[in-house]
Amino acid sequence: MKAYKDMTKEELMHERDALTKAYKEWQGKGLTLNMARGKPSEEQLDLSIGLLNNIVDEMDVIREEKNIDLRNYGGLEGISGARELLATMMEVTPDDVLVYGNSSLNMMFDTISRAWSKGILGHTPWCQLDKVKFLCPVPGYDRHFAICEYFGIEMIPVPMHVDGPDMDMVEELVSSDDSIKGILCVPKFSNPQGIVYSDEVVKRFAALKPKAEDFRIFWDNAYCVHYLYEEIKILNIIEETRKAGNPDIVFEFCSTSKVSFAGAGISGMAASEANRKDALATMTVMTIGHDKVNQLRHALFFERGRKIKEHMEKHAALLRPRFEIVNKALEKNLGGKEIGTWLKPKGGYFITFEALEGCATRIVQLAKECGVVMTGAGAPFPYHKDPRDSVIRIAPSYPSREELKEAAEIFTICVRLASVEKFLGENA
Amino acid sequence: MKAYKDMTKEELMHERDALTKAYKEWQGKGLTLNMARGKPSEEQLDLSIGLLNNIVDEMDVIREEKNIDLRNYGGLEGISGARELLATMMEVTPDDVLVYGNSSLNMMFDTISRAWSKGILGHTPWCQLDKVKFLCPVPGYDRHFAICEYFGIEMIPVPMHVDGPDMDMVEELVSSDDSIKGILCVPKFSNPQGIVYSDEVVKRFAALKPKAEDFRIFWDNAYCVHYLYEEIKILNIIEETRKAGNPDIVFEFCSTSKVSFAGAGISGMAASEANRKDALATMTVMTIGHDKVNQLRHALFFERGRKIKEHMEKHAALLRPRFEIVNKALEKNLGGKEIGTWLKPKGGYFITFEALEGCATRIVQLAKECGVVMTGAGAPFPYHKDPRDSVIRIAPSYPSREELKEAAEIFTICVRLASVEKFLGENA
Repeated sequence: MKAYKDMTKEELMHERDALTKAYKEWQGKGLTLNMARGKPSEEQLDLSIGLLNNIVDEMDVIREEKNIDLRNYGGLEGISGARELLATMMEVTPDDVLVYGNSSLNMMFDTISRAWSKGILGHTPWCQLDKVKFLCPVPGYDRHFAICEYFGIEMIPVPMHVDGPDMDMVEELVSSDDSIKGILCVPKFSNPQGIVYSDEVVKRFAALKPKAEDFRIFWDNAYCVHYLYEEIKILNIIEETRKAGNPDIVFEFCSTSKVSFAGAGISGMAASEANRKDALATMTVMTIGHDKVNQLRHALFFERGRKIKEHMEKHAALLRPRFEIVNKALEKNLGGKEIGTWLKPKGGYFITFEALEGCATRIVQLAKECGVVMTGAGAPFPYHKDPRDSVIRIAPSYPSREELKEAAEIFTICVRLASVEKFLGENA
Repeated sequence: MKAYKDMTKEELMHERDALTKAYKEWQGKGLTLNMARGKPSEEQLDLSIGLLNNIVDEMDVIREEKNIDLRNYGGLEGISGARELLATMMEVTPDDVLVYGNSSLNMMFDTISRAWSKGILGHTPWCQLDKVKFLCPVPGYDRHFAICEYFGIEMIPVPMHVDGPDMDMVEELVSSDDSIKGILCVPKFSNPQGIVYSDEVVKRFAALKPKAEDFRIFWDNAYCVHYLYEEIKILNIIEETRKAGNPDIVFEFCSTSKVSFAGAGISGMAASEANRKDALATMTVMTIGHDKVNQLRHALFFERGRKIKEHMEKHAALLRPRFEIVNKALEKNLGGKEIGTWLKPKGGYFITFEALEGCATRIVQLAKECGVVMTGAGAPFPYHKDPRDSVIRIAPSYPSREELKEAAEIFTICVRLASVEKFLGENA
């Protein structure tokens, strides 16, 4: 396979003609395919269909919890079974956990909103400061960036390496600038690259000495049990921050969104006692408690966490072939052409394709016009601005395998076409 | 029955001795009774036990909604069946409704939080203003006041009359002071008095001409279908504000917390198109959607609203005798003594007892020491400060009828004892 950069103009033009023909053929089929969002497939949702079963037989359980009827008001911290379930997932103790509603994103938003209006642990509310900045590992999760943008938090991009964010940069920035108040990151199977933070990176996070006392790490452990192959461990941030004498520096989030139902799961946060008390002081004004019946469903269905491993293996069995379809298409159609790079993640929900500089927008546009919706180019960057216009997030979970084969095939044609155009100087 | 004010000192001392004896007898029983919170009883929760039944048979329904699998992400506005259910309760159209999570209180908190950090419809965020004030009908709902206090919103008490808040005062204040940004009120079976706003009051609300363009009425229609006897209508605020050319002035909230499960229901807001769009712009950053499976359960169980009337009659059948137990005890033991007044609500969750000035704290304390927990004196007032120390909220819904008979009996003894003490000048 010849690299595009080594092709002559004639070879490139020939390649373009062949690709254009293939592209138009696909276009003629009028497909509607989607690799845009990290949504579980229907088959995955069916794995938890037992959650919709009758739980009336559990009336004794419904009434068991500290004499609170789980259908009634109260129980702000969450029921014990749900705390245990989330604690199992995060490898902490149930006492470390506060349970929230169906969305950990909502809990992150609310945590920042609380810091904004009220301040963290008695510190000045961020809304009263001239400037609030967050560090943002890039590429990263678009919904994290959207929260920062919403509050007018200035985002400082921090490059990702194969073992996590650039920790030299993180350490230097947080220790020198007290307007830097947080970092939002996905430590395991990062969104979108699937990178797993190394022990050293976790330890350096835990040992951070920020200039701002109310600096917080938002440790979004969204994919903590979401392996495609064997289990992969990362160091436990709650434990490491305790060891480092830094227990209040981190909020760890997780949810069952990609374990049970994406829209009807439970979520929660692990944090130090001081941080939990601080959060509860707001939660007690905000609500009389989250949905404890749904917490009970989850506690029963996953046996307070004991069933998680077995259950996640079923998810992996459905996801693995989908990831491999994309990987194979990338290898088969792009291998050796030197027009892009990609990592093979061992968990999570995404594959990141890094195209030649200046090609991402064009590739996404070509794909769209051929019936394949991709996450928008730029999405994994603050303010949607990919400085090199090269990163594309691929989400293989939702389409059927048949659809995915077509979508991946079309995607690689678009990558090749955009790259040929670039070499031919047509993509200004 | 002789009024206490007409008793001689000897008669009062005799009364005190008799009451003290009765009080100590009750105290000796070591009871643990609670009339503090507006919680539905277990029997009421059992009315909706069908919500916990198997809904797997509804897989076609689960997938019906605009091609969204209801278990998956998406559907920020809520599913059509849930919008219809809440619209039926509020007597609006489904298009007027945004569905939220399990708590309308949470939606009110988030709405104020959004105004605080971001501003309403492009207006200056309230956190950037020197002063933000809310009007608070008193007596009122303690959790409304808690939200204001949390954000540092100055609360201006507005007296309640038998037909609603003092509208002369409301009109004068909102038209003259642009730092007044809102009013939180319960228009039907108000918390705690059970007052129903008259047509004139609703119309005057709808026609308000506030100085602040971002002034909003938070119309907490928590008890919109919560009749104890026959149905009682109030004018529809959404319709009236439209008629008055004032459609953006109101957010109307409601929930199924006291229809299905207090902790596991659904909630929502009716509002103008502009207000809904504004809310959605924040919601889309905050979450990927609320729990649509629980929305589906509610839509199915209540047949999109058609079953609400029949269902609420069952609640009334359980609540009515409880309200009557309290009313009877008040009449029997306090009638003619001129040591307090009370209204007989026709719906809602509370009875308000207005004691002699300076007696409420003492009554609540006496009750507590006799095993009966009441809502704290002062709770229905901003900053927990009842200027006359006279208002006590009674919540009859949760205890069993047997417990309630005892609790009401004890309560009236405490009222009499505190009143005798007052007349004897012992309660300084």
